[in-house]
Amino acid sequence: MIIQSPQVRIGIAGASGYSGSQLLRLLLRHTGVAVGPLFANSSVGAAVATLHPDLSGRVDATFEPWEIEQASRCSLIFLALPSGEALPLLPLLAQHGVKVIDLGGDFRLKNAANYQQFYRRDHTAPEYLSKAVYGLPEWNRAEIAAAQIIANPGCYPTSILLPLLPLVAAGVIDFDCIIIHSMSGTTGAGRSASAELSFSEVAGNVRAYRVGDHQHIPEIEQALQQVAGREVTVTFTPHLLPVERGILTTMTLALRRPITAPELGELYRQHYSNEPFVRWSPDRIPDLRGVVGTNFIDIGYRVDPRTGRLTLMSAIDNLLKGAAGQAVQNMNIQLGFDETEGLL
Amino acid sequence: MIIQSPQVRIGIAGASGYSGSQLLRLLLRHTGVAVGPLFANSSVGAAVATLHPDLSGRVDATFEPWEIEQASRCSLIFLALPSGEALPLLPLLAQHGVKVIDLGGDFRLKNAANYQQFYRRDHTAPEYLSKAVYGLPEWNRAEIAAAQIIANPGCYPTSILLPLLPLVAAGVIDFDCIIIHSMSGTTGAGRSASAELSFSEVAGNVRAYRVGDHQHIPEIEQALQQVAGREVTVTFTPHLLPVERGILTTMTLALRRPITAPELGELYRQHYSNEPFVRWSPDRIPDLRGVVGTNFIDIGYRVDPRTGRLTLMSAIDNLLKGAAGQAVQNMNIQLGFDETEGLL
Amino acid sequence: MIIQSPQVRIGIAGASGYSGSQLLRLLLRHTGVAVGPLFANSSVGAAVATLHPDLSGRVDATFEPWEIEQASRCSLIFLALPSGEALPLLPLLAQHGVKVIDLGGDFRLKNAANYQQFYRRDHTAPEYLSKAVYGLPEWNRAEIAAAQIIANPGCYPTSILLPLLPLVAAGVIDFDCIIIHSMSGTTGAGRSASAELSFSEVAGNVRAYRVGDHQHIPEIEQALQQVAGREVTVTFTPHLLPVERGILTTMTLALRRPITAPELGELYRQHYSNEPFVRWSPDRIPDLRGVVGTNFIDIGYRVDPRTGRLTLMSAIDNLLKGAAGQAVQNMNIQLGFDETEGLL
Amino acid sequence: MIIQSPQVRIGIAGASGYSGSQLLRLLLRHTGVAVGPLFANSSVGAAVATLHPDLSGRVDATFEPWEIEQASRCSLIFLALPSGEALPLLPLLAQHGVKVIDLGGDFRLKNAANYQQFYRRDHTAPEYLSKAVYGLPEWNRAEIAAAQIIANPGCYPTSILLPLLPLVAAGVIDFDCIIIHSMSGTTGAGRSASAELSFSEVAGNVRAYRVGDHQHIPEIEQALQQVAGREVTVTFTPHLLPVERGILTTMTLALRRPITAPELGELYRQHYSNEPFVRWSPDRIPDLRGVVGTNFIDIGYRVDPRTGRLTLMSAIDNLLKGAAGQAVQNMNIQLGFDETEGLL
Repeated sequence: MIIQSPQVRIGIAGASGYSGSQLLRLLLRHTGVAVGPLFANSSVGAAVATLHPDLSGRVDATFEPWEIEQASRCSLIFLALPSGEALPLLPLLAQHGVKVIDLGGDFRLKNAANYQQFYRRDHTAPEYLSKAVYGLPEWNRAEIAAAQIIANPGCYPTSILLPLLPLVAAGVIDFDCIIIHSMSGTTGAGRSASAELSFSEVAGNVRAYRVGDHQHIPEIEQALQQVAGREVTVTFTPHLLPVERGILTTMTLALRRPITAPELGELYRQHYSNEPFVRWSPDRIPDLRGVVGTNFIDIGYRVDPRTGRLTLMSAIDNLLKGAAGQAVQNMNIQLGFDETEGLL
Repeated sequence: MIIQSPQVRIGIAGASGYSGSQLLRLLLRHTGVAVGPLFANSSVGAAVATLHPDLSGRVDATFEPWEIEQASRCSLIFLALPSGEALPLLPLLAQHGVKVIDLGGDFRLKNAANYQQFYRRDHTAPEYLSKAVYGLPEWNRAEIAAAQIIANPGCYPTSILLPLLPLVAAGVIDFDCIIIHSMSGTTGAGRSASAELSFSEVAGNVRAYRVGDHQHIPEIEQALQQVAGREVTVTFTPHLLPVERGILTTMTLALRRPITAPELGELYRQHYSNEPFVRWSPDRIPDLRGVVGTNFIDIGYRVDPRTGRLTLMSAIDNLLKGAAGQAVQNMNIQLGFDETEGLL
Repeated sequence: MIIQSPQVRIGIAGASGYSGSQLLRLLLRHTGVAVGPLFANSSVGAAVATLHPDLSGRVDATFEPWEIEQASRCSLIFLALPSGEALPLLPLLAQHGVKVIDLGGDFRLKNAANYQQFYRRDHTAPEYLSKAVYGLPEWNRAEIAAAQIIANPGCYPTSILLPLLPLVAAGVIDFDCIIIHSMSGTTGAGRSASAELSFSEVAGNVRAYRVGDHQHIPEIEQALQQVAGREVTVTFTPHLLPVERGILTTMTLALRRPITAPELGELYRQHYSNEPFVRWSPDRIPDLRGVVGTNFIDIGYRVDPRTGRLTLMSAIDNLLKGAAGQAVQNMNIQLGFDETEGLL
Repeated sequence: MIIQSPQVRIGIAGASGYSGSQLLRLLLRHTGVAVGPLFANSSVGAAVATLHPDLSGRVDATFEPWEIEQASRCSLIFLALPSGEALPLLPLLAQHGVKVIDLGGDFRLKNAANYQQFYRRDHTAPEYLSKAVYGLPEWNRAEIAAAQIIANPGCYPTSILLPLLPLVAAGVIDFDCIIIHSMSGTTGAGRSASAELSFSEVAGNVRAYRVGDHQHIPEIEQALQQVAGREVTVTFTPHLLPVERGILTTMTLALRRPITAPELGELYRQHYSNEPFVRWSPDRIPDLRGVVGTNFIDIGYRVDPRTGRLTLMSAIDNLLKGAAGQAVQNMNIQLGFDETEGLL
């Protein structure tokens, strides 16, 4: 535990969105940092409390236009921007010596060709891809602590990798049969005017989307391959749920050899027994209710003796462990705070 | 019962919206009419089934651009358009001898000054205000049968007037203390891209809106005054609910003289015993579940002996009795069909 | 088309539940049948309109206690009962020469041992298992037309078999890798008091349940095996959604040989081009909104060139094509009505 | 600010319910208290994390059966029990010198006859009615600080009294025309198995309930009368919303004299400018989103020049400012902690 220094100043770019405002709420509870400036685009000039009325009486700041001079006075900047918008900002911040945690997907993939294929855009700062550390604390804590640039994992990949990586590391699953079915709340789609995301269309409805070409596929495969030491190809189908927050993931896996629930529990214990935000249980089936509003991931698993397959399930809050919560967890590691500060 | 003539051709302007597509669904079940053309704006050229996938396999039409020539071949056109858009179309149709049922608010008020104040727009065809018949079948059936132009009532006014008018006619309530609290589902706001109406904002939320200046206020007061024979001023507060369909209205009324539940029941019986779509009960509190998907209005009432006040409650489906259902009911009257045809 | 004979009398046992009341709503629109008696258990003596207020003013019947004498005056009885409750009733009805359509699972499996394992109850009338015809019209129409007893398919199996069977029949998929992920609305769990199904617990929540041991597994496998001509084992994971109605199923399948979307479309065309309630499209991803309130099944499919896997999707209304709608479709076939009567 | 003493031990009776578990979550964040024992009834022996999975990994306690010996070792006990269950417990605790904050309604009314009428039960400890201090901090802070027994206000009364009392105190409203319309989420009805509160019944639905005889009516009138110095009779109509948390209240009031929005703002400023949890604004219409998850009450107001009436609106989280949050606020005052400790 370090002596907490309230003079550590933290800025947020994209503070008006769902992830950005969640960062703000978490940092207000954090005892070691001062927050601001809060950069936005279309909301510049508006009081924070106008867009986020729950913060009325607690935050009297207004959203400011992006300025590198303002930003460079911060120790660390969170980028919570739509896809592509971090491309010009992150290099600039790095050049000014500001630490960066990017909540978007612009710097997660090591391979710029993958970025182009799945994000449908050229990568304009590929030299930073190798410098960015993938911010999955449970697997990269040391690199995160030393990093200047952190690519915060995607919401779906977080919900998938944490349950899956221990099994990949142990080699117990068939790498050629990883079937992933995920379901997300609407805040995962960001804050924007869209007839498709209107209440009248989403309520009572469920549907798959971006079947077979979601931009999180290469991120998931990249992380699995690093641990597997070989090529891994997954089938990932995301669905939009009529809930505001939360991701539930159900994976169906073929086992290389018979394995029991206690053996699986032992695998998780080995990897995660000291992890403050990972919970697993062979008995309880994870649900959104157990994680929404928290930075936890819940993991459950069932071996089916009929089929020899393993059903692996997880739940996270897409805005917390899936975005802002994990970002603050990374910040805590990077800046030397207690890892759970502001998050319990 | 007349001999049903399938050669009666009905067009819809604004067929891509929520009310317009509801009209289409009702008319598909109607045994006496042929439907089309279906006019739209931004959806011109799209297949109906693309926007309304539930109609896939049942309707293979595409949305067409508005053309008076096409329209004038119809016996009757429903206008299901955003506020203001019926102003130029309705006179044109009337001049071509086409019957019109306007589901919007452009021709409901007799007083153009009221229109300007509450709709915030000049009325460009005030000479048609006196020609349009207010399409509340339970109170205007004869005029509706003879009308060329029908102004279909607003969703809130329908939910308010049907329970209230018998009490106004009988003079049992204090005209100076009519407090109306209504709650509506989101389809009442139409089909448009709006951050305010996104699932992430509406789910789990409720709020009042247009407090004291909603455009349905003069419509309600005009209809009450006509029956009361004097000026009536109401206080009306609408709320947006996290449901797709339905309006629940709760009114608090001061009584001029003590009245019992059976006396109230008798009043409703006098006015509505032959009405196919009005249900009332002193015992059952109306709810949305009892009316959504139907053209019924449910009315409930409780006299509070402590306060001497009457709580009057109603429920309708905003897209049916509050819009498309009532419009088809009007069409049935106007064209001589059985009034319930297509509606049960 | 036969001459419709309103003297055909249809009874419903379990008329107070969600499926039972849905049957009632459909039969009210059916031009060829008279409905009643309506048998119930705990609701005996209550007016139908008390439990189903939307039917107030349309049905003035009350729920009656089960009596075989009453029942045997009907041409056909629908059984819409909780699991196990059809075991004593169905044989009795058959002995009285009454046609039966059982919406429950008691007579769907041919193998009584499977019933005992998955329904956790002894089968007390196993001699009827071979007599009951599995009521999937698209695959068993001739047997249905001739049947005295019909076992109406389960909601999940309907959503799974209709998209899957053409592929099984054509032998294009690997029978050892059928991964099924389904999501259902809450009415699928029936109408009962349960803290687990309360709004406060279900809203905003999603979870898997009965992982690996759901009672629909043997039903699915039995139907697949019949077409495949060999043993088939599926992995099926059902989830509970915060919606009232609808089932969305997403299947991940390994292909035996490369296949294109047009080839898949051709397979569906071969099997379903004359089917009134099956819709398929390579372009549109099925969603609940497109089917809720209808008897349609929507089927979508995407071949993933990266993985060589096929994602097969479907949507139904669990109370219509998944229960009461399909049951009425079966009745229409069995009694010689137009197959779509009452269902469009 | 006092020196925080973690040895202050706090117990909860009814810890398994929605309010009880909310207390637990708040007290876990409180730096000055130790929590436990956690008393329950039907859940005795279960791990807290089994019922409240979000607390898994944070609380390893189990629910214990009520024992006065255990309870009497606490400095303060929160009673979060169904109506009537505090009647025997509160006197016992008081006799053992334990401070009590009762979140239920058993000790809020000064008049036992009112209790009997509205709670439909004899009051068995009427001698404690005068000893219990009504725990509305903004109006009773001094008495709360000195109290042994606190009757924590009801959720609806909190949402109604805080906006209304300043107007009553100033005499600007007509005491004979106070029309209150409130809408509550389902957690307000507690955690119990009920077909009426099932998701299938509540989703997409809204209805009034206990029209004219809700048990919060005498509580509201008692508090208004105390400030008004005369009899006050209100009309209060509560509604059940398809949301989990939150109360929105809309009041329609007649004004004794014309008043402007700035004058109203000044009234609120006088009473609430130092209140940490009261926010008011003439511009922003309160909604649930702005308060859910917080201990704030939001107050909005509009004077209608057409009618001379005032529309007064408020929003709270029924489980926080409406129950557990206000209870912890009271505890903070009673035990000398900073009033906002654990609540921001």
